[in-house]
Amino acid sequence: MTANKQIVLAARPQGPVTPGNFRVVEAPVPTPGPGEVLVKNEWLSLDPYMRGRMNEVKSYAPYVELGAVMVGQTVGEVIESKDESLKRGDKVLAALGWQLYGVAPAREVTKVDAGSVPASYYLGVLGMPGITAWFGLHDIAKPKAGETLVVSAATGAVGSVAGQLAKIEGCRVVGIAGGKDKCDYAVAELGYDACIDYKAGDLRDRLREACPKGIDVDFENAGGEILDTVLSLMNPFSRVVVCGLIAEYSLAEPYRYRNMRAVLVNRIRMQGMIVFDWKGRYEDALAELRWHVAEGRLKYRESIAEGLENAPAAFIALLRGGNFGKQLVKL
Amino acid sequence: MTANKQIVLAARPQGPVTPGNFRVVEAPVPTPGPGEVLVKNEWLSLDPYMRGRMNEVKSYAPYVELGAVMVGQTVGEVIESKDESLKRGDKVLAALGWQLYGVAPAREVTKVDAGSVPASYYLGVLGMPGITAWFGLHDIAKPKAGETLVVSAATGAVGSVAGQLAKIEGCRVVGIAGGKDKCDYAVAELGYDACIDYKAGDLRDRLREACPKGIDVDFENAGGEILDTVLSLMNPFSRVVVCGLIAEYSLAEPYRYRNMRAVLVNRIRMQGMIVFDWKGRYEDALAELRWHVAEGRLKYRESIAEGLENAPAAFIALLRGGNFGKQLVKL
Repeated sequence: MTANKQIVLAARPQGPVTPGNFRVVEAPVPTPGPGEVLVKNEWLSLDPYMRGRMNEVKSYAPYVELGAVMVGQTVGEVIESKDESLKRGDKVLAALGWQLYGVAPAREVTKVDAGSVPASYYLGVLGMPGITAWFGLHDIAKPKAGETLVVSAATGAVGSVAGQLAKIEGCRVVGIAGGKDKCDYAVAELGYDACIDYKAGDLRDRLREACPKGIDVDFENAGGEILDTVLSLMNPFSRVVVCGLIAEYSLAEPYRYRNMRAVLVNRIRMQGMIVFDWKGRYEDALAELRWHVAEGRLKYRESIAEGLENAPAAFIALLRGGNFGKQLVKL
Repeated sequence: MTANKQIVLAARPQGPVTPGNFRVVEAPVPTPGPGEVLVKNEWLSLDPYMRGRMNEVKSYAPYVELGAVMVGQTVGEVIESKDESLKRGDKVLAALGWQLYGVAPAREVTKVDAGSVPASYYLGVLGMPGITAWFGLHDIAKPKAGETLVVSAATGAVGSVAGQLAKIEGCRVVGIAGGKDKCDYAVAELGYDACIDYKAGDLRDRLREACPKGIDVDFENAGGEILDTVLSLMNPFSRVVVCGLIAEYSLAEPYRYRNMRAVLVNRIRMQGMIVFDWKGRYEDALAELRWHVAEGRLKYRESIAEGLENAPAAFIALLRGGNFGKQLVKL
């Protein structure tokens, strides 16, 4: 067996993340104790929330210590099991982080069926991002048929599921994404009614054109200027699901929102969400997501980086919107 | 009968309201038609929302036209009735605006009982401000006993009711008000656990001291720097009732909020409210408010300006926090 390879947090970012914030290290492959499994990771998920974990600030989850392996969800194969619930060769979903091998208690990993769908789907449409979209939409936004929903980061792992689920509910769906390719894909493949390239300028005017009846739901993944602009076009009794604020994560100073008054005037309900809060109910979401995927109603696109060494560059690109679809690293 | 006197909107404010935005005019006392009543106004309510009506912008209610009588709620006495539901001498709550006499359809005024409580109470604790506090607290904030609630404009018409109702619910209540007198009153008379003078500086540190377990509910009447500071101290799953943003109403440029990220990290639910949305249910609130007032559990303070001519000055002072308690004009 080769040695383990890991990417650790070398330095906390000041503003934008740089390659120097990470370091590749070698370490012995760990040995599983009783009740544990050793997993060879095959896929690593890269997600915007990881940016938050790089800061030494109190949040809903602990931050990564300097010198520690970067956190992240993984899909891999059990190569040694010290627990009867799992055996060598099983494919499992785990949170083993940015490394080639990891050990975890068997009860903290989930066996997945890699026969009917690719194993990597459990990091995206059938994983945290898909579940996030499902609960944000159904438990917070609660859109009604005929309402207009706007979704930012519209072709990303969460946004693409939220937008397609809203189409299934009968909404008019308008995406916001960076670049013509993503916007074309959102309309042609994901079935959105429109998609606006925020890099092309005039966001407010284009959004107003695309939402002639105003905006009833904003499924917010971007934040910053995008959220602020959307706020100014929201209808009375509309809802904002604050799911992600990727545009803010790399700013040294937070973006300063000017349209808070719209919350009062239009009685907007704005609510933050972290998927962990639904932990006991993931299966509600997954059952429906699996069905939609099996029936071909949920399109899903992956953006794949090759090799652990390329994880930092792929992550930095993700934070700038350089990915197109769910960002993964093939290990 | 003397002539009617009215205050009309003379010019739209650019930034802070000035006396020049108003003009006193004389007009004939109007004559009621069939189904209408003529009312001699005795009390005029001054409220922060009126600032919004002075701007020519689309909002939840129409703006005041240039040259038109300023809008506002009034309590007065029927002096001529062309409807069998009301008779001369009845005290009524109406929305006759900034003038001495007004005519309204009988079905648009509400007869009030001025025997058990002063008639002016129907413009405050037993009127829109009290109802606003009740629904904001019970329908949106939903505080639990033991939770910490912060209320800004803490001794004002809405804030004082919201804070006292929260005390009745068993909350720790921390007010924010301008000046030592108001803060002393909030603790000694309204029964708050603490009250912070935002003009004394160090708002965040003092608020943190007064809320050792963080903030679970913010009943927001002020906005601007106050709301932004409160946001930074809110607990996971906390609620912000956006009831008023008086600190913003007179700014030429909106205040720019930097702590939106707290909404995501702490899964804050922030919701705007306008009391009209509960129109069919006012009596639910009023029944309880009347009971609390009758039992002496709700303290209520009025700030009274004498004479219609003094309404503009009193309104300008109100917007700067110069009132101490519910602002009225005795006509």
